[in-house]
Amino acid sequence: MSETLSLIVSSGTEDKLESAATVIAGAAALGKSVNVLLQFWGLDAFRAGHIDEPRGLAADAGAAGRSLAAAGRDRLPWAETLRQAKELGDVRIQACSGSLETLGIQPSELDPLVDGPCGIAAFLMAAEDGQILFI
Amino acid sequence: MSETLSLIVSSGTEDKLESAATVIAGAAALGKSVNVLLQFWGLDAFRAGHIDEPRGLAADAGAAGRSLAAAGRDRLPWAETLRQAKELGDVRIQACSGSLETLGIQPSELDPLVDGPCGIAAFLMAAEDGQILFI
Amino acid sequence: MSETLSLIVSSGTEDKLESAATVIAGAAALGKSVNVLLQFWGLDAFRAGHIDEPRGLAADAGAAGRSLAAAGRDRLPWAETLRQAKELGDVRIQACSGSLETLGIQPSELDPLVDGPCGIAAFLMAAEDGQILFI
Repeated sequence: MSETLSLIVSSGTEDKLESAATVIAGAAALGKSVNVLLQFWGLDAFRAGHIDEPRGLAADAGAAGRSLAAAGRDRLPWAETLRQAKELGDVRIQACSGSLETLGIQPSELDPLVDGPCGIAAFLMAAEDGQILFI
Repeated sequence: MSETLSLIVSSGTEDKLESAATVIAGAAALGKSVNVLLQFWGLDAFRAGHIDEPRGLAADAGAAGRSLAAAGRDRLPWAETLRQAKELGDVRIQACSGSLETLGIQPSELDPLVDGPCGIAAFLMAAEDGQILFI
Repeated sequence: MSETLSLIVSSGTEDKLESAATVIAGAAALGKSVNVLLQFWGLDAFRAGHIDEPRGLAADAGAAGRSLAAAGRDRLPWAETLRQAKELGDVRIQACSGSLETLGIQPSELDPLVDGPCGIAAFLMAAEDGQILFI
């Protein structure tokens, strides 16, 4: 099995972040090294002091999403899942340098879950021959 | 060529499901084993009795999407493409256990196209060294 | 390191196209062969004469996206980044045959950045054992 799994997380809704956290935690539990690069709204979700705010669901959630929201079940445990995955496995979460600049965010303004900034070339090199997902 | 192609399908619009079905059918035609994990709105699209309902287009469809809808051409043949791909090739479609629980869906409520529930770790193990896409 | 990176670009917002351009340029700078397949709204963004039009941000951009738009910084340099990546590296951009037909676009109506039409099976074969992302 490939030893490295890499994810670029560009989306910032509860469902997409939950999908990312599920994959990250699953891969970490299998003993893989997991490298995550945060871009755009995925990066915005990791601003310090905002990570536990509600983020809403994707625009295509439709009737199923409205049911979840109406039942007050549209908050998903992605941040807590990621905290546990980082404690138990080899998970590195980095902020894409280009997105930091575009959004005007300083690395110091990010949640401690984020290990630091990273350029795309360094990220792709670390991804080596492993699998990469874009979420 | 890699023998396995895996897809996590989280989106539930006609265009994203059509992209998924196109990739799945193409990979199956090349003789690959295809493993699909349905999450969130991608899972919701496979509820029994609802699979042929219109699902709408992605929010970023813009003017091109409005033209398609106005011309009555915004229904795409993804479900039929998947049925044919399953008949002709090695295609397994599974429902993510976590999403089943989040959405409150029982495996028995899913279309026969879905082979059963699957956890993320088992899915990632089956994905082995092959390619994975997140749609 | 894997020699080939393949991307299916189905989304057509400024942020998703910028993410795609960033990955493409980074992979090309590392000496990889990059194969891109345009589908749906990602394909629509490459119509000749329209490639420099504003495309808007993803629906999940939220407050960060509204800030960018209010500051007039929601236009991103993806098209220029792709032009440079094609000049400096081995980057091939193709239009998915199925999406051309669905959207009623002729190959001749596409920007010169697009090298031509391509079917999904040929694209997956060229992707070989390399990494594939779906954006």
